[in-house]
Amino acid sequence: MANAFYAQSGGVTAVINASASGVITTAREYASQIDKVLVGRNGIIGALQEELFDTSTMTDADVAALKYTPGGAFGSCRYKLKSIEQNLAEYQRLLAVFKAHDIHYFFYNGGGDSQDTANKLAQFALAQDYPLTCIGIPKTVDNDLPLTDTCPGFGSVAKYVAVSIREAGLDVASMAESSTKVFIMEVMGRHAGWIAAAAGLASTHAGQPPHLILLPEVLFNEAAFLSAVKDCVARFGYCTVVVSEGLRNTEGQFLSETGLKDAFGHAQLGGVAPVLADLVKTQLGFKYHWAVADYLQRAARHIASAVDVEQAFAVGKAAVEFALAGKNAVLPIIVREQDEPYRWHIGEAKLADVANVEKPLPAEYIRADGFGITEACKRYLAPLIQGEAYPPYEQGLPCYLTLDLPLVAKKLEGWEKK
Amino acid sequence: MANAFYAQSGGVTAVINASASGVITTAREYASQIDKVLVGRNGIIGALQEELFDTSTMTDADVAALKYTPGGAFGSCRYKLKSIEQNLAEYQRLLAVFKAHDIHYFFYNGGGDSQDTANKLAQFALAQDYPLTCIGIPKTVDNDLPLTDTCPGFGSVAKYVAVSIREAGLDVASMAESSTKVFIMEVMGRHAGWIAAAAGLASTHAGQPPHLILLPEVLFNEAAFLSAVKDCVARFGYCTVVVSEGLRNTEGQFLSETGLKDAFGHAQLGGVAPVLADLVKTQLGFKYHWAVADYLQRAARHIASAVDVEQAFAVGKAAVEFALAGKNAVLPIIVREQDEPYRWHIGEAKLADVANVEKPLPAEYIRADGFGITEACKRYLAPLIQGEAYPPYEQGLPCYLTLDLPLVAKKLEGWEKK
Repeated sequence: MANAFYAQSGGVTAVINASASGVITTAREYASQIDKVLVGRNGIIGALQEELFDTSTMTDADVAALKYTPGGAFGSCRYKLKSIEQNLAEYQRLLAVFKAHDIHYFFYNGGGDSQDTANKLAQFALAQDYPLTCIGIPKTVDNDLPLTDTCPGFGSVAKYVAVSIREAGLDVASMAESSTKVFIMEVMGRHAGWIAAAAGLASTHAGQPPHLILLPEVLFNEAAFLSAVKDCVARFGYCTVVVSEGLRNTEGQFLSETGLKDAFGHAQLGGVAPVLADLVKTQLGFKYHWAVADYLQRAARHIASAVDVEQAFAVGKAAVEFALAGKNAVLPIIVREQDEPYRWHIGEAKLADVANVEKPLPAEYIRADGFGITEACKRYLAPLIQGEAYPPYEQGLPCYLTLDLPLVAKKLEGWEKK
Repeated sequence: MANAFYAQSGGVTAVINASASGVITTAREYASQIDKVLVGRNGIIGALQEELFDTSTMTDADVAALKYTPGGAFGSCRYKLKSIEQNLAEYQRLLAVFKAHDIHYFFYNGGGDSQDTANKLAQFALAQDYPLTCIGIPKTVDNDLPLTDTCPGFGSVAKYVAVSIREAGLDVASMAESSTKVFIMEVMGRHAGWIAAAAGLASTHAGQPPHLILLPEVLFNEAAFLSAVKDCVARFGYCTVVVSEGLRNTEGQFLSETGLKDAFGHAQLGGVAPVLADLVKTQLGFKYHWAVADYLQRAARHIASAVDVEQAFAVGKAAVEFALAGKNAVLPIIVREQDEPYRWHIGEAKLADVANVEKPLPAEYIRADGFGITEACKRYLAPLIQGEAYPPYEQGLPCYLTLDLPLVAKKLEGWEKK
């Protein structure tokens, strides 16, 4: 009998709690092998600071409610462990906390950086002869992990952006003759254009929004963009544009660079939409509007994809099953069997193979003019937004779970990040 | 037997087509009195240019589908008729087109400006001895019409912003310890703060998002705002802010116009959210994110309020019934009977009494510190977002109606706007 540790890492999603629900539900089914699932308060920082929630105090109804609650119910963090050489103390501290709390299963729910951390920790525990099974659980709205067909979290953002541009497109079309002619919607995607590409699902025939998609994979060509906008307005009376926050110019600079960097050293972005709007106004003279979806898109559990919710739960469940089957340093992935009807099953990949590898949109998914997606891309994306998985409502608002779990009593001395 | 004319006016909403559905459905029920409902292409401009859609070619299923399709299915416009003295020719032209097409009922679906136009036209037709019944149909996301309990279109935006800030708030709360501490969501409302106020419904206890609401009714006090943000972060670990696009400083300028300047010193066209974010960053040093919902909020039929959809249909239906009952120069309004459970019925107001009158948030709906709403405001707002009225989905996306109606053959010479 041993305890398990679970933590959420990096940017949260509309369905990361569904993975938590998969882990906890499944662990409860194997109660003879896993005693308690302890969860890090604010992710791995909770393990370092010995701030652990005991999920055994959660009712089954609460565990089920995680499945429809967006955000990170236990808290997440942007905190990347350095290499073992650079910060041995952190790895030692993790094992000390795990030992003190009888933790021998480590489930880490995150993106490429987090899978790298899980992998390093697996190696370290092995070297230290501490029995620790390390299993990753994929998560990222950016859909940029290799090997897996998709990353839980992405399908729901994809659905949100496709629904939003379809709706806003109808609005703009109604008014274009006498009012706004160009509408620009900025979506997430720092290095990979999967989210912006997904907006393309809203367009089922020529002329239907979105008319132009600007991807980080295609360097921004101002003249070509302005010409495409002008042509679109001439042809259809209006133009809707979806732009990835990570759009870069020919010098490789982000069109909208704030200069701030996050804890991982990534530039913090936001605000490429107003930059494009300014161009449209000054160069073409069209009336414009712009929107920046920002967190609304990745938190939008009210319009989550049913497929995404199901896959998020499934990878959580599989992670526990992998651990109990004696696997280590691996993560469950989604394996596509066929496009339509979509069939998939859970496969397995090594943490080492997904760690720190980013998967951009392949060239064959990008339209020849660089301003849209191909039919192949649509065939890939379409299954991921299928089905609605509405949360319950009370008084007209989604009724999301808020946890108020007590922390497990500390057994060690305090610890401070360096 | 006579024909009816219907037009959509001004900014469209998630439910203005539900009012169109109410008009057409009801007119079909009185087929012995109303022959055809002709609709202006792009609103009143369609009447002036004699571009009229014949809705009798629409199937009943299409008319029903209008009830769940956002935007303006026939096109709308921002075009206000001048006074009769200033532009007599326009009024003469409208009557000429109506006479040519046997139109004796005029239904105008819009805000305060549009009700003013409908009223002027009623007077002019009377003076010209042309039998024309003019009935307004209320619509505006801003909820700023007087007399009516609410304006169809508002309840759905209200629901969208409350759902969005609840979801984004969960996201920010998850990450605040190591990442974003302040999140700012900009919503519509140039002169009245009803939309921003509605976000307050998401907060059912102290500390729940949104923490601060900035209304156009309260002049922006930078020091008080920064102090409130700082206190909120100290108390809850993070701060979520909902701001009305129409927020003004103590000199009466829109904050959105005081923002960043480009290389030539021109104001960058932006929203108020990035201006506040910049303040938070430079004055308090907190990591921030911001979103601008823009058209997404007023087009978001996928999360429409069932009450709003029902009321939008009801005012369309009532408009036809008023006309057939011999009323003129009036509009149906929503009359509240009680808050909970919400009970309402259709009442009647004179166009002259709603024309060009804006209803701001009353003082008793604004919290003493100016950064939130009162319980009285919540009691007013809560009923308006009740119920979900999901559209049908196909392939993971809402299946909205797109019309391709033929225009009625012109009978008059062409006409050009002056």
